[in-house]
Amino acid sequence: MSPKPRNALYAQSGGVTAVINASAWGVISAAQQHPDRIGTVLLARNGILGALQETLIDAATLSPQQLGALQTTPAGAFGSCRHKLTRTQEFDRLVALFAAHDIGYFFYNGGGDSADTCLKVAELARQRGLDLTAVHVPKTLDNDLPRTDCSPGFGSAARYVATSVREAGLDVASMASTSTRVFVMEVMGRNAGWLTAAAGLAASDATTPPHILLVPERPFDRGHFLDEVQKTVARIGYCVVVASEGLRSADGKLLAESEHKDAFGHAQLGGVAPLLAGLISDQLQLKTHWAVPDYLQRAGRHLASGTDLQHAIAVGQAAVQFALEGKASVMAAIVREQDAPYRWHIDAVPLAHVANQEKKMPREFLDESGYRLTDAARAYFAPLIQGEAPIPYVDGLPALPDWRFDDIPQRLPLWHG
Amino acid sequence: MSPKPRNALYAQSGGVTAVINASAWGVISAAQQHPDRIGTVLLARNGILGALQETLIDAATLSPQQLGALQTTPAGAFGSCRHKLTRTQEFDRLVALFAAHDIGYFFYNGGGDSADTCLKVAELARQRGLDLTAVHVPKTLDNDLPRTDCSPGFGSAARYVATSVREAGLDVASMASTSTRVFVMEVMGRNAGWLTAAAGLAASDATTPPHILLVPERPFDRGHFLDEVQKTVARIGYCVVVASEGLRSADGKLLAESEHKDAFGHAQLGGVAPLLAGLISDQLQLKTHWAVPDYLQRAGRHLASGTDLQHAIAVGQAAVQFALEGKASVMAAIVREQDAPYRWHIDAVPLAHVANQEKKMPREFLDESGYRLTDAARAYFAPLIQGEAPIPYVDGLPALPDWRFDDIPQRLPLWHG
Repeated sequence: MSPKPRNALYAQSGGVTAVINASAWGVISAAQQHPDRIGTVLLARNGILGALQETLIDAATLSPQQLGALQTTPAGAFGSCRHKLTRTQEFDRLVALFAAHDIGYFFYNGGGDSADTCLKVAELARQRGLDLTAVHVPKTLDNDLPRTDCSPGFGSAARYVATSVREAGLDVASMASTSTRVFVMEVMGRNAGWLTAAAGLAASDATTPPHILLVPERPFDRGHFLDEVQKTVARIGYCVVVASEGLRSADGKLLAESEHKDAFGHAQLGGVAPLLAGLISDQLQLKTHWAVPDYLQRAGRHLASGTDLQHAIAVGQAAVQFALEGKASVMAAIVREQDAPYRWHIDAVPLAHVANQEKKMPREFLDESGYRLTDAARAYFAPLIQGEAPIPYVDGLPALPDWRFDDIPQRLPLWHG
Repeated sequence: MSPKPRNALYAQSGGVTAVINASAWGVISAAQQHPDRIGTVLLARNGILGALQETLIDAATLSPQQLGALQTTPAGAFGSCRHKLTRTQEFDRLVALFAAHDIGYFFYNGGGDSADTCLKVAELARQRGLDLTAVHVPKTLDNDLPRTDCSPGFGSAARYVATSVREAGLDVASMASTSTRVFVMEVMGRNAGWLTAAAGLAASDATTPPHILLVPERPFDRGHFLDEVQKTVARIGYCVVVASEGLRSADGKLLAESEHKDAFGHAQLGGVAPLLAGLISDQLQLKTHWAVPDYLQRAGRHLASGTDLQHAIAVGQAAVQFALEGKASVMAAIVREQDAPYRWHIDAVPLAHVANQEKKMPREFLDESGYRLTDAARAYFAPLIQGEAPIPYVDGLPALPDWRFDDIPQRLPLWHG
């Protein structure tokens, strides 16, 4: 006779993406296929905070509509958080929660910081002798998780920024004779230029936008940059720049961190794009426009990549499979088999090799100037933005999900954190 | 025997939109159905500038692929311009051009300023005794053209901003427990809040984003605004604001015009969103994020509204019909018959009633607070964002058009403008 099924706990953590809910669906749907091994799938509200606070949803209470919406709705259906586990009190609480709800499986869906949380939970289980298997489900817009070819969430954001700069580039091209000559779009990425570089996919040759990519890995050289802008405008009449929010000067300072006051006398929040646009209009006397899509780029589910959606579901499903196989303290990683036609599979990699590390973009992804994609970069990025992932529209807008869930009754004393 | 066919001249003017090329297609396809009346359709490069410079494309040389791409590609395929006709020299040149190319029909595709240009050309023809029929084809993101229910280009931008704020709102909602509490998105609109108000369609009730709309028609009241932000955060945990770029203080000053220096010591280019975000984080100590989609919202053809696309094609086709009926100095206006189910037709309205005028948004479109849509506004906006208008994707990105066109040989001396 097989052992009694144990319950599972799933939570979303860190910055959300266009497809993180698809990973939730992957975990839930795979777990529900093994009722002999996995009993209740509990979903923590707001990541690890919901585990501490014991605000838990029973996945079995989700309606078919809600389950379906997980595959087509961006951001975190159950809430996410930015929280690092540090205190003994927190670890004790988690042990109490795992016991109270008979948790045998822990699935944590996030990026580098979340991998650290997942690893800490795994180590906690080992130290306290709990029978608990912790598996990390990767997700990050930044694409900086090591030991995986890419991270779910990145491909969709990449498709969003590349589509946006292609469309806006056509706008600039058509108006340049009498209006804007230089357009600057700012892209997320504090420490690595993955997403900015992926926007470079929109350029089909040396004349189509974007013409200049600015990434954190290459220190910003003001003179060289202005020269390149001027040369591009002279050559084709206009210039489109994509810049990482994490762009730094040679001394390592974030450009967007520079202090300046706004009209109310407050410190102005950063923004590399307005800074660069100001520099260009001032130094080159060219009319500029700038865009900062911010959350639009990571919430843009309507433009999600089909590949990314498949990845997101697959890592969720594989995480469950790995847990059932007893692979503890691992991450469900995406392994690329070949670029074209694109082939991939999911593998388990040790979480200890993942947590708290950032994967930088290879230097050879940008050419000598540092401004343009190389063929190696194109071969890497191209498959990740392929395919459509249609969503339902109601009255012209993405269907609004019904994220009203009931919490299960609490079994522990109130958490005072 | 019917008279010899005359040639037509079409040009795109002012800020481009997601569907202005669809109007070009409407004009070209309708004109080509009347070879007995209309000979060659000439397309001026860069609006009226191409007429002055005699840089003209023969529409008959467009490939089937190029004609098809007009229906699915944003911005101006033939280039646009911002240029007001003022000098006698320019009018003389136009008369010479019309004669040299036997132009009997003039179709100008633009907003308020362009309607002025079209009217000036019509008056020029009358004064000089030319047999030339000028018809205006409306287009403006701003939706501020009078005598038409709406303007092509607006509905698609409205669908873009409403979709974007719905998606980003889900992001903010899911992170608010430990991260961003207030998100501010800036929307185009210098003098009228049409587009900002349309973003309000994303809110299905008083709890869903956006929670606060800020339009130029209502002077910005800092205290009242901060109070509303705070109350919203207290009520539902976060707050999403959509603000017009043209937001003004009670003394009529543009908020974004306020002078402040950036890190390079340059005057920082405007941006209402970063200004408001800075105000909120400073005064309410809440974490903020902000987005400025800028050209992305008017070039976002991938999210174009089906209604808007139909409007854009219809005004182009009707302009040709009106010209053939001898209706001179008119604009092809959209007339709404009923809201739901939406019904409309195209009518000819005198250009003199259109040029150089701005249609403001009705005061009753916002409630007493000035922050929320009324039912009247919803009834007006809702049909304009309905329906999809799919585009072809190649390798995950909107297909890049081949906008290489040959100019016809010049017949006039070089223009030294």
